Amino acid sequence: MRVVRVVGYHKNLELAEAPEPQITSALDVIVKIGAAGVCRTDIHIIEGQWADKSNVTLPYTIGHENAGWVHAKGEGVTNVEVGDKVILHPLVTTFPGINVDGGYAEYLKTGARSVIKLDPKLEPTDVAALADAGLTAYHAVAKAARKLRPGDFCVMIGAGGLGHIGIQVLKAISGATLIVIDRNPDALKLAKGLGADHTIEGSEDGAFVQKVLDLTGGKGAEAIIDFVAEGGSTKTGVKMIRRAGDYYIVGYGEEIQVPTIDIISTEINFIGNLVGSYNDLTELMVLAAQGKVKLHTSIYKLEDFQKAIDDLSAGKVRGRAILVP
Amino acid sequence: MRVVRVVGYHKNLELAEAPEPQITSALDVIVKIGAAGVCRTDIHIIEGQWADKSNVTLPYTIGHENAGWVHAKGEGVTNVEVGDKVILHPLVTTFPGINVDGGYAEYLKTGARSVIKLDPKLEPTDVAALADAGLTAYHAVAKAARKLRPGDFCVMIGAGGLGHIGIQVLKAISGATLIVIDRNPDALKLAKGLGADHTIEGSEDGAFVQKVLDLTGGKGAEAIIDFVAEGGSTKTGVKMIRRAGDYYIVGYGEEIQVPTIDIISTEINFIGNLVGSYNDLTELMVLAAQGKVKLHTSIYKLEDFQKAIDDLSAGKVRGRAILVP
Amino acid sequence: MRVVRVVGYHKNLELAEAPEPQITSALDVIVKIGAAGVCRTDIHIIEGQWADKSNVTLPYTIGHENAGWVHAKGEGVTNVEVGDKVILHPLVTTFPGINVDGGYAEYLKTGARSVIKLDPKLEPTDVAALADAGLTAYHAVAKAARKLRPGDFCVMIGAGGLGHIGIQVLKAISGATLIVIDRNPDALKLAKGLGADHTIEGSEDGAFVQKVLDLTGGKGAEAIIDFVAEGGSTKTGVKMIRRAGDYYIVGYGEEIQVPTIDIISTEINFIGNLVGSYNDLTELMVLAAQGKVKLHTSIYKLEDFQKAIDDLSAGKVRGRAILVP
Amino acid sequence: MRVVRVVGYHKNLELAEAPEPQITSALDVIVKIGAAGVCRTDIHIIEGQWADKSNVTLPYTIGHENAGWVHAKGEGVTNVEVGDKVILHPLVTTFPGINVDGGYAEYLKTGARSVIKLDPKLEPTDVAALADAGLTAYHAVAKAARKLRPGDFCVMIGAGGLGHIGIQVLKAISGATLIVIDRNPDALKLAKGLGADHTIEGSEDGAFVQKVLDLTGGKGAEAIIDFVAEGGSTKTGVKMIRRAGDYYIVGYGEEIQVPTIDIISTEINFIGNLVGSYNDLTELMVLAAQGKVKLHTSIYKLEDFQKAIDDLSAGKVRGRAILVP
Repeated sequence: MRVVRVVGYHKNLELAEAPEPQITSALDVIVKIGAAGVCRTDIHIIEGQWADKSNVTLPYTIGHENAGWVHAKGEGVTNVEVGDKVILHPLVTTFPGINVDGGYAEYLKTGARSVIKLDPKLEPTDVAALADAGLTAYHAVAKAARKLRPGDFCVMIGAGGLGHIGIQVLKAISGATLIVIDRNPDALKLAKGLGADHTIEGSEDGAFVQKVLDLTGGKGAEAIIDFVAEGGSTKTGVKMIRRAGDYYIVGYGEEIQVPTIDIISTEINFIGNLVGSYNDLTELMVLAAQGKVKLHTSIYKLEDFQKAIDDLSAGKVRGRAILVP
Repeated sequence: MRVVRVVGYHKNLELAEAPEPQITSALDVIVKIGAAGVCRTDIHIIEGQWADKSNVTLPYTIGHENAGWVHAKGEGVTNVEVGDKVILHPLVTTFPGINVDGGYAEYLKTGARSVIKLDPKLEPTDVAALADAGLTAYHAVAKAARKLRPGDFCVMIGAGGLGHIGIQVLKAISGATLIVIDRNPDALKLAKGLGADHTIEGSEDGAFVQKVLDLTGGKGAEAIIDFVAEGGSTKTGVKMIRRAGDYYIVGYGEEIQVPTIDIISTEINFIGNLVGSYNDLTELMVLAAQGKVKLHTSIYKLEDFQKAIDDLSAGKVRGRAILVP
Repeated sequence: MRVVRVVGYHKNLELAEAPEPQITSALDVIVKIGAAGVCRTDIHIIEGQWADKSNVTLPYTIGHENAGWVHAKGEGVTNVEVGDKVILHPLVTTFPGINVDGGYAEYLKTGARSVIKLDPKLEPTDVAALADAGLTAYHAVAKAARKLRPGDFCVMIGAGGLGHIGIQVLKAISGATLIVIDRNPDALKLAKGLGADHTIEGSEDGAFVQKVLDLTGGKGAEAIIDFVAEGGSTKTGVKMIRRAGDYYIVGYGEEIQVPTIDIISTEINFIGNLVGSYNDLTELMVLAAQGKVKLHTSIYKLEDFQKAIDDLSAGKVRGRAILVP
Repeated sequence: MRVVRVVGYHKNLELAEAPEPQITSALDVIVKIGAAGVCRTDIHIIEGQWADKSNVTLPYTIGHENAGWVHAKGEGVTNVEVGDKVILHPLVTTFPGINVDGGYAEYLKTGARSVIKLDPKLEPTDVAALADAGLTAYHAVAKAARKLRPGDFCVMIGAGGLGHIGIQVLKAISGATLIVIDRNPDALKLAKGLGADHTIEGSEDGAFVQKVLDLTGGKGAEAIIDFVAEGGSTKTGVKMIRRAGDYYIVGYGEEIQVPTIDIISTEINFIGNLVGSYNDLTELMVLAAQGKVKLHTSIYKLEDFQKAIDDLSAGKVRGRAILVP
């Protein structure tokens, strides 16, 4: 079968032929790939940023946001049948596309505990990119929504790939008032269209902090969800949080540096968020099937992988780039 | 001032003159009534059903769903100013209209801890009827919503006064799928318009139970909210609940009779619900100000109280009847 | 191997020879039985009470409270090694001893997801009877403990098999004040020794209700845990519950019959409880290893099964009867 | 009456005569002081560290950990009677001893919402020091205990004033395993006596981190409660936390500096903690009345205030210093 592989760090990916994966264990599932999301993490992998953490041996096939159809399954698999349309939870014991072969390929081997059967209304190309980016956004937003009540404010920092999913999720499952901050006016326009109650343009001088305080009666927001967490985001973010509020960290890049006296005197919390659970992905698929969460996608053929990567690097992709074998 | 009073059980209410209430204690608040909801409980009071429980001395002024403006306040009151537009939480230490003088009147005396300042967009006539019926519905639905996730089912039994508020609240704060059951096709049409995902006509033979099981893959709903709880409602209601599900009792009238083996073998819960808290009412007022919860109302002048009561008894009121002094 | 089997309902169990179970599936685990608890449910099975529910074909081996050592395992099993000392969670997809062959035997076949490795300090005979009865008590008490605060009252109805585990669990994980009710003065003496703060003798006339009200300032207890739920237990039990309190149903036998007006006017809840989860059993094993939960046991050889059953029927067993192959 | 006042920063406190406080508002309560805790914060006040934050006008009376008897009350006060033995919640709308006159005095004026009636078994001298330091420890530990299950580990950093209360609270309300770290061997001996399961001596080189990892199977603790949070405490503390664990910040002094990638990749949380609520103090008083939380105290007469302050500064106080008028 055709696969797209990392052959060396700081080198272009290469298309190659590889044997199809086989069932070797009772809980194995082979998925015929219908769509694989192209993610900024893929670029980071090529740049070698994950080399130490993933400990993967080159060459290997990348692609960690995958959906398709069950092609074969081990004798112990009872939750899906051959032919079922499925999305793959990215992280069970291995993380296909990061530390074992992933989904830039015609077939991928995974396990029973990572496959979720899709609603008939959904197609692999619609949802593949929700498997990692969308799932991370869902996880953080659902955690915040459990505490937010009508009249509470939630500030989202960043209305990009994760943020625009986060906006749709919050509006679908909560009655909180949503303020979205981004430096890109187009992203804010999209945010407004997706249901943000207020949008504020970000800026170097942090003028947006005062605008959030004005909107919240000078008190700040009950929840800040920071999809950026680099370039000084947390330093200004903390100024917008209400007493006893929660600061959800989703993005990463910088250090948080906060005096402990500020943490205790206002009783604020910092909450870490990684990719969501299997149940989270199931719930996100429900929202997708109900039309409450939608992704904009740009479809590329598998063999056009280089163009997809180049477009993503150049900021030219509208929505999420998707590879289709 | 003019007041409408209970002068005897099983007798018509009477319009009378009474002295205006005065501030006598530090936390007193006098409210100039802008609107008082006419509630089925008022009819039950006239019928004497509450005589033993309220221990009130006749004659007294009824009306327990009240909104208006702060007319005067004691020296210890800091949360509202004279002139503020307010709704009254019905139950703090006394329950005006039930065991002390209520709001079928020009002025009513209450306490600082029962008044909530209204958003400028809201008028007393818009919200008065949310003070008791709406608050009870909000309380139960918000409790249920805390546990419901996308893909979960919620069945509401009864789409009348409380139910039609409950529908709007659930859709505003949760991503659960809502099934509404009522015997009245018009009520179901309204329910659909307010956001119910599925509506099912109730019937003597309990055929609706199978329809709920069909919609839920044979498993039943994660939450049942029973706004009726009489006439056999709980007996059929229990048949629609999923393993580990919650049965919220809001209406009342009959006994629940359930074998303990059925409760333990399925791990179901029965949850009692009374009127909501001060915070609940604050949150409900936020939803009202945001236009997410709306009441249909029919306005009557205070002196037309008898017509309002008669219309309610005859089932002729569209939405909720409201008295305005 | 030797097994003890049900050969017919209303007949004595019989000792027989049967082939040892074999690994046939990737997640199978064969356990060499070290101890099997003799439970009142076993007597109910012999009496035919479970015949309709379990749908088991006679003859079959009973015994659903099992502990021992891993004897063999399928290729997919990674959580235990051959030789490990384990306790068996009773209910995963099948319920050995109820609807498939159980532990009155030398070997038993179960699955990877039901075995929990024991602390070296614990022996199969110490803990086997915690696998079902103890686990059910732990599950209900841990649920109650999550809500109970210092100064809150918990009433336990019944200080027998489940109750005496429940007492130890509550004192180990909560600061609540514990009142235990039982008709047997010896059981109350044991309860006191295990940490009950107050003990009250039960009686036909329900005089204990007033004693609970006296102990709780007339308000009743925040939690009632009813290990009996038959013979009128729930009817008097409800009289001891505080406003907004929780009534945990663990035992079974009778119907609960409560007017819905009583449920809503006091906002009380009825909470169903079945056997605990795998995590619950893990936590209970921690408390056992720490010496915080102890069982009194009477050991019988496997071939003396009839005497164990007879002693249990006659009320002659001190603590829990345990069969050892 | 006699009072001990701050007359200038960096100057000794002075004994003076002042008029007794009077009831001037409906919810006022005058307390005859029975005991006032001498706290390190009092030294910080004298050093001027709170001058900017409290905005208090000198001279004023300090003392923010107070207990005594109700001496007089306003007409609106219904929760206590004159003569009742009470402890004072430190922070309602004002913070007596910080920004209004406090309890180094014969009488103190506070409000109805800050007084909690004491159990007859408790005396003001027993509990005064629990009003602030103890309450802060209780608040953080009770928050942690709500999530800790048997088998979970809790690490407390610091077994001093707050820590030794925290130890007693955790053991009274939770089944978690407690590891206490302190640089002072005597403090660890006390910790062990109060119920700590493991004690580890702290050190500059952070060798204790490895000991915690060893005790927790290499995984770290589910909860870290940091009563120190200065001198590098948080930097080593973070190394002892398990995936998805919670780091409770109670002490203060340094900045936390943590890379966001470490927060998200392990999903850890930082939880801020200030003084507890009125309900928290009520619960702590229950534990005190039950003998589950005890304070060591050294009693000084009010006029010996300077000696108490000097002894505290010199580290010569055994337990907590208490002033008695």
